[in-house]
Amino acid sequence: MNAMLQEPTPEFMRQVAAAAAAETLPRFRQGGDIINKREAGFDPVTEADRAAEQAIRRLIRESFPDHGIVGEEFGVENGDRSHVWVIDPIDGTRAFISGLPLWGTLVGLTIDGSAVAGMMSQPFTGELYYANASGAYYEGPGGARRLAVRRTTALRDATLCTTTPGLFDGRRRALYDRVEEAVRLPRYGTDCYAYAMLAAGHVDLVIECGLQPYDIVALIPIVEKAGGLVTTWEGGAAEAGGDIIAAATPELHARALEFLQG
Amino acid sequence: MNAMLQEPTPEFMRQVAAAAAAETLPRFRQGGDIINKREAGFDPVTEADRAAEQAIRRLIRESFPDHGIVGEEFGVENGDRSHVWVIDPIDGTRAFISGLPLWGTLVGLTIDGSAVAGMMSQPFTGELYYANASGAYYEGPGGARRLAVRRTTALRDATLCTTTPGLFDGRRRALYDRVEEAVRLPRYGTDCYAYAMLAAGHVDLVIECGLQPYDIVALIPIVEKAGGLVTTWEGGAAEAGGDIIAAATPELHARALEFLQG
Repeated sequence: MNAMLQEPTPEFMRQVAAAAAAETLPRFRQGGDIINKREAGFDPVTEADRAAEQAIRRLIRESFPDHGIVGEEFGVENGDRSHVWVIDPIDGTRAFISGLPLWGTLVGLTIDGSAVAGMMSQPFTGELYYANASGAYYEGPGGARRLAVRRTTALRDATLCTTTPGLFDGRRRALYDRVEEAVRLPRYGTDCYAYAMLAAGHVDLVIECGLQPYDIVALIPIVEKAGGLVTTWEGGAAEAGGDIIAAATPELHARALEFLQG
Repeated sequence: MNAMLQEPTPEFMRQVAAAAAAETLPRFRQGGDIINKREAGFDPVTEADRAAEQAIRRLIRESFPDHGIVGEEFGVENGDRSHVWVIDPIDGTRAFISGLPLWGTLVGLTIDGSAVAGMMSQPFTGELYYANASGAYYEGPGGARRLAVRRTTALRDATLCTTTPGLFDGRRRALYDRVEEAVRLPRYGTDCYAYAMLAAGHVDLVIECGLQPYDIVALIPIVEKAGGLVTTWEGGAAEAGGDIIAAATPELHARALEFLQG
């Protein structure tokens, strides 16, 4: 049972990032076959997505054989375990197929449903953002350092990220627009990269809707261990996905929630 | 007079990219003082912007003493010359201050008003996109190669980039929205990086409005030498900026223009 109590080490995070990069990076900007998972709409998944998830699953099984795994591409294995890993091999597939280096590989660990460790890696830029019980960290261009949010408390001073306002339905769009009108600067097109920028102190708010657990679990510890908050628009736990807000400070979180709750 | 006929070499492009990077990269993700140039609105320019433009001007003066220079930060010198360089030290300052590596350093050369050579460099990712009379080229992660657009001819197959639809006024927004509704995939938040992705064959269309000459001159040769087109929404020369469309093929350009011309 002791194996189930292991913390993922920084070295394990780096191994996972490297194994995923070996599958994703050679296929980035190479064209490649795109499978439309949903006939209505545009939900591409590439060979890279599938090969990376298989590589990540192999590493987890080797190091944590008693743990469960949930992944975007290949579903649930041992989902009844206390420790469950949650994988999105390429978060931001639309960025990926457009050549934009804002996608990332997301791997998180939950214990009894709570996200306790996670990583986001971007292999084209060579960046790794990760968190475990001891803190949140960056490794990449410019060196290694601890991640820390900036202490923005007012919406008028905040930079806000969302993947695209087009993802919000009518009611949610109206609520989102109220926040966007109140902030200093909105940025679009960011996917998982926005949460890394929040943890690193470059942006202050991320607001999204309709997320799956694998879109957010890995990012929760990175933001929280950097000093920020991640919840649903109702203020509850974010691990199940849905409509999500991440904020640098409790004050900013509260002010944005006032708008989002109508 | 022979000096005025010199073509900028790949080595000169690399020197300019390196000189700009030495000023921009150490200030990227470091906070830093932001000056609001316009009190109404949000038009930040950082120390990095100013220092990079000075470094670029020094290199141009040394190698091309008879040429004119126009830059975003420090205006016109010798603007009456046949050969004039056009500089935007940081295109995408909003991306820059948000930590997102989609900004770029733009340096273009015009002869008698026509853009004949140009470069876009992104120092965080280590990418250089440039064009001269012999062609358009990429250097960076994954190696060096020629740039070539992909041969997309139908809007329904196209990926479209714009910095943000929020930049379009009412009339232009309605025209732009018609194109966005017709394409396969829109992407936001891209600035100059979108034109590099177009030249590299990852996206097919870029539509923007209200550009300055320094926002577009450097990018025109990169797109054109890769096989694409850059014009105003009226189909005229793009060197003076304004409302701009870049397209991978003449067919795609014509179809988008039909929508944009109402």
